Amino acid sequence: MNRTGPGKFRHPTSVNRRLVLTGILAAGAGIPAPSWADSAPDPLPSWNDGAVKKSIVDFVSHVTTAGNTDFIPPEERIATFDNDGTLWTEQPFYFQVAFAFDQIKKLAPSHPEWRQKQPFKALLEKDMKGLVASGEKGLLKIIAVTHAGMTTDVFRDAVLDWTETARHPRFGKRYIELVYQPMLELLAYLRSNGFKTFIVSGGGVDFMRPWTEKVYGIPPEQVVGSSGITKFEFSSGGTPVLRKKAQVEFVDDGPGKPAGINRFIGRRPVFSFGNSDGDQQMLEWTAAGDGTRFAGLIHHTDAKREYAYDRKSPIGKLDKAWDEAEKRGWTVVDMRRDWKIVYPFEK
Amino acid sequence: MNRTGPGKFRHPTSVNRRLVLTGILAAGAGIPAPSWADSAPDPLPSWNDGAVKKSIVDFVSHVTTAGNTDFIPPEERIATFDNDGTLWTEQPFYFQVAFAFDQIKKLAPSHPEWRQKQPFKALLEKDMKGLVASGEKGLLKIIAVTHAGMTTDVFRDAVLDWTETARHPRFGKRYIELVYQPMLELLAYLRSNGFKTFIVSGGGVDFMRPWTEKVYGIPPEQVVGSSGITKFEFSSGGTPVLRKKAQVEFVDDGPGKPAGINRFIGRRPVFSFGNSDGDQQMLEWTAAGDGTRFAGLIHHTDAKREYAYDRKSPIGKLDKAWDEAEKRGWTVVDMRRDWKIVYPFEK
Repeated sequence: MNRTGPGKFRHPTSVNRRLVLTGILAAGAGIPAPSWADSAPDPLPSWNDGAVKKSIVDFVSHVTTAGNTDFIPPEERIATFDNDGTLWTEQPFYFQVAFAFDQIKKLAPSHPEWRQKQPFKALLEKDMKGLVASGEKGLLKIIAVTHAGMTTDVFRDAVLDWTETARHPRFGKRYIELVYQPMLELLAYLRSNGFKTFIVSGGGVDFMRPWTEKVYGIPPEQVVGSSGITKFEFSSGGTPVLRKKAQVEFVDDGPGKPAGINRFIGRRPVFSFGNSDGDQQMLEWTAAGDGTRFAGLIHHTDAKREYAYDRKSPIGKLDKAWDEAEKRGWTVVDMRRDWKIVYPFEK
Repeated sequence: MNRTGPGKFRHPTSVNRRLVLTGILAAGAGIPAPSWADSAPDPLPSWNDGAVKKSIVDFVSHVTTAGNTDFIPPEERIATFDNDGTLWTEQPFYFQVAFAFDQIKKLAPSHPEWRQKQPFKALLEKDMKGLVASGEKGLLKIIAVTHAGMTTDVFRDAVLDWTETARHPRFGKRYIELVYQPMLELLAYLRSNGFKTFIVSGGGVDFMRPWTEKVYGIPPEQVVGSSGITKFEFSSGGTPVLRKKAQVEFVDDGPGKPAGINRFIGRRPVFSFGNSDGDQQMLEWTAAGDGTRFAGLIHHTDAKREYAYDRKSPIGKLDKAWDEAEKRGWTVVDMRRDWKIVYPFEK
């Protein structure tokens, strides 16, 4: 929690002062009990009690209580969430890459030439060494043939089909079951307090939108992501279609996240959650707004129930953003410590 | 109104059949009276009774009545509106151009070099001939210096200031007063029936968002438009800012409109309104969806109360889209015939 503007805890805005305040807040000094403490059921039952849960509930209670100087009117209650590693798992590699690999296998019978052509040959022969050797260039080829050339409708159906059938190699569950129960509760808690919840992800927007409403309660129009060019065309039958092109249009990652938020949402969020260095600028942009703001990071510390990784991980690297969180007093979730359960199927 | 899918009027989907059905609908054969006819006040009091008003009310009644085969669930009730010439006036030139001209005059004291430099010199000296001679290149220079270089916050404040102070040369009203009362009623009517209303405009998204919520009840995150690149930077004081660059990122016009809808909204609209050839593809995209869809155009026929222009107008040209509307049976509003009043200040 980063209190920089006018509010109950208004003070000279020096960094030290803010750190002290954050400490006081974390310790709970002088904070009234959250409104649900008396009688209503806990809105975040999968979160263990502690400073992290408290920082969330305190923030929401304060900014939604009319009369408080840090009250935020409902139309400005914009909450943005990264997706990979923040709302669902991103290991052993991004699920969108798993989708691309599965699509290659599915499409292979109509592409006999792939049996002799890298990186497709390596992928089809489960030659992981050869696949890794094809590098980023190989991966981009795989993404291109699985994400471009078709209409947006055909792509959506392929994604939906994959979410219903494909299984995660470690958990044996459908990928859309590997979403974080504590974050589902947080999304619902925010919405029940008048927040509008958005995804702001480096992942492809067309890959996420087909299922985010069902899985997260976040409708397509509240999903911001990376995109390729689409072209309006007429099919041979005279029907208008949008065809996906193999040209990157926008990369919604790192400094692209505040730019994407500005372009798609047009308002600065008051609450943001991420888990990696790619989310740092989104959190900085959120925290720098006028008034009380919430910036949170998930630290993956639970190799047993999920995965443990941070500063040296090639996927979901959490290094500079972690330092920034320490410096600025952002909330850092320790998955092992703060979450009672990780996935809905553990209930 | 274009009924192509399963619905109360389901028939073989030949073009001729659809045209016949459209004719029947326009004549009102077999259509139950709208629900408000009995007792509730007319939701569209500034619309004259007739085929156009009836086509709107019939569409909304049918698709929102549970049990109807053409029922549309609330989450899919996406309605998109062009802005210039559809929600507010666009003559004698686009209001965003008026904003740019006014900004040049406002900024001129800090730019003495403009007094000797075209197109600024012509604009500042009210030399319309010289200004026209500078052509599109001159206009782009004016747009660049008034729309780029500053932060998004500074630009927003400049737009808001302009909406409160600048006056339209013919009407002497603030530009935000030159919005169409019948369309304000239509937006409210759709929203009260569970539709989510969006703007999809060729205009700049950063130019519209500061005032669309107040004027139209459409929040910034439901405004799709053209955009320039923005860059995330830190100010000299260490505050993160988004700076507007003089580089076009996306042109939301013509075939760009369905692409923009796909990118920003991620769902196909079921109801769309425009007024020019730049809206044709948006209407085609809307009408081609499965099920009952509404596509409408405003024909500016009222030189006395507003302006009269169509096939030969350099601004808001309505030519091919009009032919398409005739062919496909889209609803065409005749402003003089169908609107009781044009602007709210006539009330």
